[in-house]
Amino acid sequence: MERFAPTARTTLKRLPKRAEYDRERVYAILDEAFICHVGFVADHHPVVIPTGYGRIGDVLYIHGSAASRMLRTLGEGVDVCVTVTLVDGLVLARSAFHHSFNYRSVVVFGRARLVTDRDEKMAALRAFTEHVIAGRWDEVREPNDTELKATTVLALPLEEASAKIRTGPPIDDDADHALPVWAGVLPLHLANGEPITDEQLRPGIRLSQSVREYRRPRQNGK
Amino acid sequence: MERFAPTARTTLKRLPKRAEYDRERVYAILDEAFICHVGFVADHHPVVIPTGYGRIGDVLYIHGSAASRMLRTLGEGVDVCVTVTLVDGLVLARSAFHHSFNYRSVVVFGRARLVTDRDEKMAALRAFTEHVIAGRWDEVREPNDTELKATTVLALPLEEASAKIRTGPPIDDDADHALPVWAGVLPLHLANGEPITDEQLRPGIRLSQSVREYRRPRQNGK
Repeated sequence: MERFAPTARTTLKRLPKRAEYDRERVYAILDEAFICHVGFVADHHPVVIPTGYGRIGDVLYIHGSAASRMLRTLGEGVDVCVTVTLVDGLVLARSAFHHSFNYRSVVVFGRARLVTDRDEKMAALRAFTEHVIAGRWDEVREPNDTELKATTVLALPLEEASAKIRTGPPIDDDADHALPVWAGVLPLHLANGEPITDEQLRPGIRLSQSVREYRRPRQNGK
Repeated sequence: MERFAPTARTTLKRLPKRAEYDRERVYAILDEAFICHVGFVADHHPVVIPTGYGRIGDVLYIHGSAASRMLRTLGEGVDVCVTVTLVDGLVLARSAFHHSFNYRSVVVFGRARLVTDRDEKMAALRAFTEHVIAGRWDEVREPNDTELKATTVLALPLEEASAKIRTGPPIDDDADHALPVWAGVLPLHLANGEPITDEQLRPGIRLSQSVREYRRPRQNGK
């Protein structure tokens, strides 16, 4: 399936031209970001928690401590909404009203499944690490059985999803074009600074290739 | 009140030392970020939507089109969870298991109130614009009555909130310190690029002061 079928809850009622259902374009957003906001209902009230994630094909994986209240709740197969947002710029119009953001966001609805198969769990953790920093998995010690047991991994099928995208300049009212106000876009992007070496690092260990080659935005081509 | 009183839903069950209830520190995170993820329940399922926000004192304001389904739902006074997340770095350990993020996040629980008073609405919109880019409000055309009517503003009292913060180096198992793996932190921050002038800008209009002086991270001292 190359496009997500729009559903009642993934159909944009307003500004439908900002909606994007093409699977490849939705995945490009999921692959560039690495923090999602997971929404679920606990004790009858909504809870939104930020966490990392990974993707393998048409499955989104999130993970965390087996002691995590959120993961225990989600592992029971309750409804979940996972939202990923990239902010690309400030849209600065001539009127306060038409100020906006350029952004790309993805909303996924579904029910998560607890991953119990050891191989799938390991593959998900690998995808998770590689998603955050490509090449890192092969540099570090893999999880052992105790660590695997202490880690809960959830799989969310990417079946009901859509993206919402705004790009381009401000759209001002015609009459406002006469105003003597600068208008345009101030681009924003996540940038990385210089690596900070752990003070406990043994002497003689050089910066890993994964860290040397880390670039934002990622284009990991998954 | 200088500290938020922890409640059942703002008390961290795991890693309690990452919890922060100091009002000033929670507000510093809210003031540095400018995108929140709003969680609510619609038709019995959770929905998480990214949006901008502003703060005046102990009130968080969000706004949007009067036609927005989210704002209509929230204006009815349903339970809401607003989460704000700043990612400060990748925590790169010697083992896959101990990889983490450095981050600062705030979770606010409550019920939003529809703002109907014209002055409060205007003040909220001003706070919203100034929160995104300080100094912009006085450069642009203020909302007129038609625009005010087309804009829904919601107020969420900052009564039940907490922050969660991770800082510092990776915490590896003792045995792993012998591994020949670089470990440390790769700092991340939101950066701004060069302003892109609207092609429709009248000749002779220079870049606004608010844009020239825009710096990330903001320290607007509100």
